[in-house]
Amino acid sequence: MTDAETLAERVRTGELRLHELEEHADHDTAAAARRVLLEAETDADLETVGDYAFDAEVADSAIENMIGAAQVPMGVAGPVTVDGGAANGQYRLPLATSEGALLASVNRGLSVIESAGGASARVTKNGMTRAPVFRVEGVVQAAETVEWVGENLEALREAAESTTSHGELLDVEPYVVGDSVFLRFAYDTKDAMGMNMATIATGEACSVVEEHTPASLVALSGNLCSDKKPAAINAVEGRGRSVTADVVIPGEVVEERLHTTADAIAEANTRKNLIGSAKAGSLGFNAHAANVVGAAFLATGQDEAQVVEGANAITTMDARPSEDENGSSDLYASVSLASLEVGTVGGGTKLPTQSEALDVLGLRGGGDPAGSNADALAEVIAVGALAGELSLLAALASRHLASAHADLGR
Amino acid sequence: MTDAETLAERVRTGELRLHELEEHADHDTAAAARRVLLEAETDADLETVGDYAFDAEVADSAIENMIGAAQVPMGVAGPVTVDGGAANGQYRLPLATSEGALLASVNRGLSVIESAGGASARVTKNGMTRAPVFRVEGVVQAAETVEWVGENLEALREAAESTTSHGELLDVEPYVVGDSVFLRFAYDTKDAMGMNMATIATGEACSVVEEHTPASLVALSGNLCSDKKPAAINAVEGRGRSVTADVVIPGEVVEERLHTTADAIAEANTRKNLIGSAKAGSLGFNAHAANVVGAAFLATGQDEAQVVEGANAITTMDARPSEDENGSSDLYASVSLASLEVGTVGGGTKLPTQSEALDVLGLRGGGDPAGSNADALAEVIAVGALAGELSLLAALASRHLASAHADLGR
Amino acid sequence: MTDAETLAERVRTGELRLHELEEHADHDTAAAARRVLLEAETDADLETVGDYAFDAEVADSAIENMIGAAQVPMGVAGPVTVDGGAANGQYRLPLATSEGALLASVNRGLSVIESAGGASARVTKNGMTRAPVFRVEGVVQAAETVEWVGENLEALREAAESTTSHGELLDVEPYVVGDSVFLRFAYDTKDAMGMNMATIATGEACSVVEEHTPASLVALSGNLCSDKKPAAINAVEGRGRSVTADVVIPGEVVEERLHTTADAIAEANTRKNLIGSAKAGSLGFNAHAANVVGAAFLATGQDEAQVVEGANAITTMDARPSEDENGSSDLYASVSLASLEVGTVGGGTKLPTQSEALDVLGLRGGGDPAGSNADALAEVIAVGALAGELSLLAALASRHLASAHADLGR
Amino acid sequence: MTDAETLAERVRTGELRLHELEEHADHDTAAAARRVLLEAETDADLETVGDYAFDAEVADSAIENMIGAAQVPMGVAGPVTVDGGAANGQYRLPLATSEGALLASVNRGLSVIESAGGASARVTKNGMTRAPVFRVEGVVQAAETVEWVGENLEALREAAESTTSHGELLDVEPYVVGDSVFLRFAYDTKDAMGMNMATIATGEACSVVEEHTPASLVALSGNLCSDKKPAAINAVEGRGRSVTADVVIPGEVVEERLHTTADAIAEANTRKNLIGSAKAGSLGFNAHAANVVGAAFLATGQDEAQVVEGANAITTMDARPSEDENGSSDLYASVSLASLEVGTVGGGTKLPTQSEALDVLGLRGGGDPAGSNADALAEVIAVGALAGELSLLAALASRHLASAHADLGR
Repeated sequence: MTDAETLAERVRTGELRLHELEEHADHDTAAAARRVLLEAETDADLETVGDYAFDAEVADSAIENMIGAAQVPMGVAGPVTVDGGAANGQYRLPLATSEGALLASVNRGLSVIESAGGASARVTKNGMTRAPVFRVEGVVQAAETVEWVGENLEALREAAESTTSHGELLDVEPYVVGDSVFLRFAYDTKDAMGMNMATIATGEACSVVEEHTPASLVALSGNLCSDKKPAAINAVEGRGRSVTADVVIPGEVVEERLHTTADAIAEANTRKNLIGSAKAGSLGFNAHAANVVGAAFLATGQDEAQVVEGANAITTMDARPSEDENGSSDLYASVSLASLEVGTVGGGTKLPTQSEALDVLGLRGGGDPAGSNADALAEVIAVGALAGELSLLAALASRHLASAHADLGR
Repeated sequence: MTDAETLAERVRTGELRLHELEEHADHDTAAAARRVLLEAETDADLETVGDYAFDAEVADSAIENMIGAAQVPMGVAGPVTVDGGAANGQYRLPLATSEGALLASVNRGLSVIESAGGASARVTKNGMTRAPVFRVEGVVQAAETVEWVGENLEALREAAESTTSHGELLDVEPYVVGDSVFLRFAYDTKDAMGMNMATIATGEACSVVEEHTPASLVALSGNLCSDKKPAAINAVEGRGRSVTADVVIPGEVVEERLHTTADAIAEANTRKNLIGSAKAGSLGFNAHAANVVGAAFLATGQDEAQVVEGANAITTMDARPSEDENGSSDLYASVSLASLEVGTVGGGTKLPTQSEALDVLGLRGGGDPAGSNADALAEVIAVGALAGELSLLAALASRHLASAHADLGR
Repeated sequence: MTDAETLAERVRTGELRLHELEEHADHDTAAAARRVLLEAETDADLETVGDYAFDAEVADSAIENMIGAAQVPMGVAGPVTVDGGAANGQYRLPLATSEGALLASVNRGLSVIESAGGASARVTKNGMTRAPVFRVEGVVQAAETVEWVGENLEALREAAESTTSHGELLDVEPYVVGDSVFLRFAYDTKDAMGMNMATIATGEACSVVEEHTPASLVALSGNLCSDKKPAAINAVEGRGRSVTADVVIPGEVVEERLHTTADAIAEANTRKNLIGSAKAGSLGFNAHAANVVGAAFLATGQDEAQVVEGANAITTMDARPSEDENGSSDLYASVSLASLEVGTVGGGTKLPTQSEALDVLGLRGGGDPAGSNADALAEVIAVGALAGELSLLAALASRHLASAHADLGR
Repeated sequence: MTDAETLAERVRTGELRLHELEEHADHDTAAAARRVLLEAETDADLETVGDYAFDAEVADSAIENMIGAAQVPMGVAGPVTVDGGAANGQYRLPLATSEGALLASVNRGLSVIESAGGASARVTKNGMTRAPVFRVEGVVQAAETVEWVGENLEALREAAESTTSHGELLDVEPYVVGDSVFLRFAYDTKDAMGMNMATIATGEACSVVEEHTPASLVALSGNLCSDKKPAAINAVEGRGRSVTADVVIPGEVVEERLHTTADAIAEANTRKNLIGSAKAGSLGFNAHAANVVGAAFLATGQDEAQVVEGANAITTMDARPSEDENGSSDLYASVSLASLEVGTVGGGTKLPTQSEALDVLGLRGGGDPAGSNADALAEVIAVGALAGELSLLAALASRHLASAHADLGR
């Protein structure tokens, strides 16, 4: 009987509970014991789940009741040159996914972008938000509370920033609905994605609000944050990084590499990404930005559930007159991600495979100045998303062209 | 010099390109060669990325330019009894995440649900959609096209179903915007998540549309599908499975296990999940459904980017009169996921760790009858999401109660 | 002392209540008495309010506590030729508004459209909806109810149609959220806007649902209708008429009459109506469709609060190659109103000034076949909205061109 | 031959055009001539349209091609006591509508509110917005522009405020989408609704932006304003006045006057206004706020098309413990209108019947301090909307109670 089997037996006899095993054995043995139990309970053979490459104690801050690991294939796309506000130079983008052809598509897009001299990218807004909801008696107290907050931003900043060595409170925006008051706190959380930092700081500030106003805290998150939900407030005002990447592809590159024209790509983008999304009541006016965001998040240790906000992206594609007088039109392509929540320190970035992926980007850990690594990561992911959009739209447009040619041939 | 080093050298000299390596070596060597190249290019040490537990050839359908794997800690929550339309009995839910406390939170919620006798769950709608966009000359042709489609559903069905042995065309819904016509095809794709199936079938049907109407296909996906974008059309009409899980928690269980009351939980839910989300312009009226959806998707091989639609969920929590006359109110809790896109065959479900996780659920592969395994998976994930909502809302409510008690003690 | 003064005195002494006056005097006297009271109470002089042109008894079905009328200037735009599914020929469009320049702008647009040979228009979908919400115990009963409804559409149709001589039940779509079940009933209400008809018919059908299922009616309108609220369900699925109007303006007309180019107009439309609206989280991708809808509604006796849904419109403007080889590009312009709720019988259409305005259109009362007058009204209003869009976008584009020319002149 | 007939004849012969008549005759004659022409062209008899009570020259700034007036019945609801930030005392609310029972419903609600001692109301945010869209070469220039704007708010304020004696620039918020930059200017426009003021001021500021940055103006309104469109940006951030009205109705008043209970009303509100609207993808979480907003706008000369934004309202209804220990629960009811755009000077407020209606409210013209009349108007309309919500929800709840009692009686 192995240690794991012995431990499993103690659970079966009711001596221990499943979530207590780490108190009675090392983490690997605890995980092994759980696998033993699950294998006995079910038809599962958990061999590969148990064959993980990280230190189970490290994973302790990431999971409870651990049984092993999920493994997702990781590949690398690029290189691509990024002229960013923080990113600067050539990058290879690691992506983890199980969707066949995704990496190849991004890779093709990056290659075309590289042929055009690389992409530009800028973080145009930055702020991690947390929005507690308070109860008041009614609108009279709500108005009092809003007024107090407006006049006491410094007191809130002092309280909030007392809890963090890095974070800075940027703004507090109040919203009133009947006898509920929401305060949306926004922070510069530097190289951390920052939700925990924002939550703790906001909690401290809430005490000050409760002390000086009639407002009483109901929930530290009142959903105007809005975390991991598809919400217009994020698409409009941003959360985490608002980042845009763009590129001008010369007409001849569009023709030779993408086998279509700028006009055809622009048409497909307008009908699909703009009009189709408009008709769908969408907050995402793009083809598949979430695919690239999701795969980059998984590879680099971001929060997978925040792919939700990562999908709040608008893609534009337009034909521009070629600089070459007789040339065909150039293509301007951009993707603007309103709420890309990334960090290079903390959370899943500490896991070994994810940490190594950040090293591939040269963006592991805190940047100098603080925040620059997370900014750069946002910019590189945006360029990856741009590549994905470009590749897919071009494929649609060229297929259409092909069939148009076939039509003419009849 | 290892085989991988030799292969890497051939890339460096320009003899081979990075994405061609699988043509010149086995998949493991190709991935190793890429790691050699990346390690030389950057400061990265890709040891754990390269220490994967699956067969690299299997991963070939999931990724290109493979370098290894991302590993994410996996744990298990439950057991919980599910009275579903397809799910039936006790389930343990595997979750992969790097967000500490998430699994513990779901586990606590499931334990409370189990104390209440388990949860109910039902798939109330099912249909994977694909919505091509066509160009017409104007609204006169658009109206003609819509009319033809309305009268020739059988012809479209025949074409669509000719491409698939399992899928069934359920409906085709037309939408007109100027000179664009969108047709939203919905399919029962049984145990497959079904996007590929839906895409191929729709492609075939599009040829029939083009043949008989003035409409000309611009893009096989016109974003009214809407895949991997936060879109009202999915939140309203559903995509994949629309599934609800609910439970009534006796008042005494709420008190003893959650240390709060049904009324306090209901208030927190109303102010945060309903009113807060309303004010945020959200399509997600929940606390953190995407967390559970994301972690379950990662564990079971679903498409991570479809967490976007998985967040289209509404949580309700209400106090109900206790059956025990003197008892405190019971809590009715539900979560309704409008567009949960899951499968138990195909895609990432074939990867080893994910396949093992599906075995833990007893839901690997096709169900009997067809579709029942995917239905059951949707139901169990919904129960997991319900547990997550319950646990978080109760925590908010009990903290509030605690502070309320503290207030009284002053 | 006039009769009105005497009546007013009886209110002052408490003998009568303000809303009871019609029981004690004719309607004009009752209204006059109320004016006497208000004039005494406040500084108001209600002379023009009291100088109305309709029979106060007729207004009895439109208002209570009547004091007179609001008068809004009415003008007429056009003529314009409409090639519609129901509208056919030249129309002049009456508009009532207090927004200076609006009528002139629409008039200019219609004149340009007329120069291009008139506009096309089609109603592509028709259905007035009412969506009651029911309470059930939980999702098990919800699923039962949904299933019953799916199998008993005929019974619901019979009940619903028993209440109306004209209306036809088109469809019933169920939605489940926890222990709430919503059924969205859609009707062809012919030439009536149809909300009352739909409400009464649905009420009858609800009794059948309650009789045969565990569902218990909570509200006859559960907001999935959705009436007079800005809701994606209407923008996506339509309510009332979904109607599109479009036109191709020859390049030379664009230049001569609008002093700009198709490309410049298309650019303004894309940046403002498509991208700007996308970024605003909007359901209205247009410039000012609500202006025309509102003014036409006021003139023709529609429900002013339904301007809300009338704003769910998407405008597209694109350059198309000119048929004249050396000519500048033609402009394709369209507006698609998803949820235009209009009628030519019932409600405010019976008021004298509004009824006369419908006569100007030749669309008063029921059409032959039933529904054709309301369809035609929808088509003509859509053409009016198209004119408003065209005129405003062209103004933006020409101003830009002017300033561009000025730039070049420096 | 009357003057009008003579004038009409000159149009028929082509000597004059329809929109030029005011240059050749007084305004009444011009309008009469148009009626003569329309009556000859169509079957219409425009007697009541021509029987208007205002001076046609005054209407000249409101309409072109005038033919007369639309007349809509006006009534009065109330009185109700308002404890507002600006409104203070008893008000009667004039409403113009053709929807029978609407005024009676509001009146009943106001009467119940009055029984509870009146309602509270507060404007919690104020700002009329205009958001031009600029073209830049790409994100690099976009970031430059955003940075310049952030650092030069004073220069923009100076330019903007140079065009207005009253308006104050409050804020400029930048948004970037690819090569488009949107700047959302917000103004305190005092007692004017302020769109014209905001537009002119913003135009001036745009020149400064164009002078100092690479940005080039494409459209003075880029739809992030967002005027007369259903847009989340308004529902979230407000436009015009954000105003809340609320009231606590004692349990016994609920029972005696509304024939139901606070719990039953709260349930109907939650299922319909919160959950139903959530499922509909709505920005309006209310029953029929637009009805009251629309009728008050028409009566008081507001812009009817801005009813669209007026519908962005959230209604909450909750049971609260009665102060009377043995009493049934009290009802807390609120409505929060995010974007109510009203003024008491300018635009349609100058029309005679509308001006008289403002006198009934005691709110005609500019307030002292500036802005207080428009604030007060917003508060009173909000109370009217609250009354409408209360009345309708109570009707639903009491009907339900009645049927519940009937059930028990079986």
